[in-house]
Amino acid sequence: MDERSGLALVGRSLPAAGDDAAVVDDLLVTTDMLHETTDFPEGTTRYTAGWRAVAASLSDVAAMGASARCAVAVYAAPRFDGDELGAFLDGAQAVCASVDAEYVGGDLDDHEEFTVATTAIGRTDDPVRRSGATPGEAVCVTGTLGRTAAAIRLFPDDPDRANDLFQFPPRVPAGRALAPHASAMMDSSDGLARSLHQLSEASDCGFAVDSATLPVDEAVEAVAEDEADRRELATHYGEDFELVFTTDAPAAAQAASPTPVTQVGEVTESSITMNGEPLPDRGYTH
Amino acid sequence: MDERSGLALVGRSLPAAGDDAAVVDDLLVTTDMLHETTDFPEGTTRYTAGWRAVAASLSDVAAMGASARCAVAVYAAPRFDGDELGAFLDGAQAVCASVDAEYVGGDLDDHEEFTVATTAIGRTDDPVRRSGATPGEAVCVTGTLGRTAAAIRLFPDDPDRANDLFQFPPRVPAGRALAPHASAMMDSSDGLARSLHQLSEASDCGFAVDSATLPVDEAVEAVAEDEADRRELATHYGEDFELVFTTDAPAAAQAASPTPVTQVGEVTESSITMNGEPLPDRGYTH
Repeated sequence: MDERSGLALVGRSLPAAGDDAAVVDDLLVTTDMLHETTDFPEGTTRYTAGWRAVAASLSDVAAMGASARCAVAVYAAPRFDGDELGAFLDGAQAVCASVDAEYVGGDLDDHEEFTVATTAIGRTDDPVRRSGATPGEAVCVTGTLGRTAAAIRLFPDDPDRANDLFQFPPRVPAGRALAPHASAMMDSSDGLARSLHQLSEASDCGFAVDSATLPVDEAVEAVAEDEADRRELATHYGEDFELVFTTDAPAAAQAASPTPVTQVGEVTESSITMNGEPLPDRGYTH
Repeated sequence: MDERSGLALVGRSLPAAGDDAAVVDDLLVTTDMLHETTDFPEGTTRYTAGWRAVAASLSDVAAMGASARCAVAVYAAPRFDGDELGAFLDGAQAVCASVDAEYVGGDLDDHEEFTVATTAIGRTDDPVRRSGATPGEAVCVTGTLGRTAAAIRLFPDDPDRANDLFQFPPRVPAGRALAPHASAMMDSSDGLARSLHQLSEASDCGFAVDSATLPVDEAVEAVAEDEADRRELATHYGEDFELVFTTDAPAAAQAASPTPVTQVGEVTESSITMNGEPLPDRGYTH
């Protein structure tokens, strides 16, 4: 059983699962695990690791249009170095402060591989789910695509720049501003293509996307080998943590959001296409 | 830096840390990581792992006298077997249901070693902290001590019995019932001895414990080699997840608690002793 089949099993067992975060009363709860071999390339600072691990969970809160209240993390490593742990905590606290949330600690654990498990808690009375997209609506994304893909390529030669790109801003303010306008929303952590497939499944709809409209990150322009590579990094690579949402009022959404919003296509009855060609369900598998 | 020094650093950085759970508004948030080599002996079923991992976090909620609202977990393994994952979810759901909480899912992650990160959320307007013990009060424990120590010894020959012992009941109902009576409280996850040292540090007090009063689990009686071993398993081994608390009204506490409560000694001005001898700060280090 692969990870996606496993998640489907979890979804069948647990009615509260299946969105970016679980809804419990007016709370949202979401948890993630990141580890060295798959999530923190060589050159990733512990500050960046703290920022990014906590930000990944805050992004799930953002994806449901909620405010972020707090986060915790388990820091597991083969040894505890005071400077490394301190830097991790600084990064975790900084990203929480950036979205008016509080980092309230967690636990330490001995572990062979550097591993971080984070949980974020949000509050909302009206979460935006993955279901709700309707044919004829616009499909939009916040910010830019391909930021993480570019960072991965930059780590060997320009770790400072790569670390900056890895410290992405969780789109909590945008998520809150977009919530009244969005019919369906999730984050792009698996890549735009896979996000569209997931929204399609939850909303029983299709999407028609135009590649010319994609807000490709300028860092991708600098590292992409050619146009096909550029599109691959922006569409399939994932780990970008932008918001992907549908709306019948794209202009109002753009006006409300503190982060730039780009319409990249339309909701259709069925099938997911880019420039009229099928867009494969391929991307990052967590 | 060892794990305890690391936790001290976390505590200095984060005012909300230092108790069994972080307090955020009326919420309690606590997170833990367990993994195969240190927490799940050979023979531990996935059902037991799901129960126990989630129960460890629910125990932290209990230790602050709160109700338990929900829990999430990340299930990380080298491969996802449908039966194993299903059994894990069944165990996680069952332990939540046993304390009127909801298991609301989580995430899956590829990981070389079977690893579980759990987070529980509780609610209370008046959390019981580790500080607050006053000389002259009684120090009490719920349930029995040494249950996990006995299970560890039983795993090779009687895995069924060991699994049963490993599925400990989180003391959420007792914690709620004891909250109005307890001046300080925590769980015994590091063992009774270490719990007393931690309460002593937070409350600036000492303890005088009488070994004859310890409610040693009957499973310990069956596996202990001699009296010294028996006391070691009950006092230092840890991972028992009973509540250790102080109160000026032990009779009222006993009457209120749905779980048996045993007074094991008294709060003193300073120093921690058992039968008049210093009780070393030795136990399970997570």
